[in-house]
Amino acid sequence: MNVLGTHILLELRDCDPRLLDDLGHIRAELFRAAVAVDAQVVGESFHQFSPQGVTGILSIAESHISIHTWPELGYAAADIFTCGEQTMPDRAAAAIVAALRCRDPEITQIRRGPDGARVVELQTAHILN
Amino acid sequence: MNVLGTHILLELRDCDPRLLDDLGHIRAELFRAAVAVDAQVVGESFHQFSPQGVTGILSIAESHISIHTWPELGYAAADIFTCGEQTMPDRAAAAIVAALRCRDPEITQIRRGPDGARVVELQTAHILN
Repeated sequence: MNVLGTHILLELRDCDPRLLDDLGHIRAELFRAAVAVDAQVVGESFHQFSPQGVTGILSIAESHISIHTWPELGYAAADIFTCGEQTMPDRAAAAIVAALRCRDPEITQIRRGPDGARVVELQTAHILN
Repeated sequence: MNVLGTHILLELRDCDPRLLDDLGHIRAELFRAAVAVDAQVVGESFHQFSPQGVTGILSIAESHISIHTWPELGYAAADIFTCGEQTMPDRAAAAIVAALRCRDPEITQIRRGPDGARVVELQTAHILN
């Protein structure tokens, strides 16, 4: 199969609501996640919503890392899409889960490329430990 | 099920390679796709790679639209993640497919929210027609 990259979707439940509404914290932690996978950041976009919620995206040479938060639900949806041989997106996933003090993450891993998108079965606990 | 949004993953095969390497074209078409779903753009990040390839991301109030291109393969991976009742991400998908003159798209649709991520079976042709 012609796979170019791995896309991880994180459903982050039971996070610390204060951290979900803290743009500075989220920006710092997304950069930290990028470092965790040796990604090269080539662009960024962060936005604070009113009355609450943050959107953050890092463009990386290997694709992107994004997050959208709902502090009122203790929930965030994050994506880590990395291409190339050297990247290990699970490291970025673990970093984001820890950064938001998330106690109930769900991970969906998808292989992407010209042959299509394929969901890979995995154990969330295995990725994060 | 507590669904907050719909995430569409597009595997865009057999695109026009010249269009895939044209940052100005891709930026204009991503904005056009945002308009197609009545999305409010709150940020953007675009980057031209050397020797080829473009990464583009629009942060929208409803989440994000992103694309990463491989002109040498005639391939691009695009994402349209929209939250809220009013958005129709399939319209943005159709706009991007047309904009890149893609002749072989594959669409994966995922419902996301605190109850988790669930792949929705669908017919690519149905979405684009």
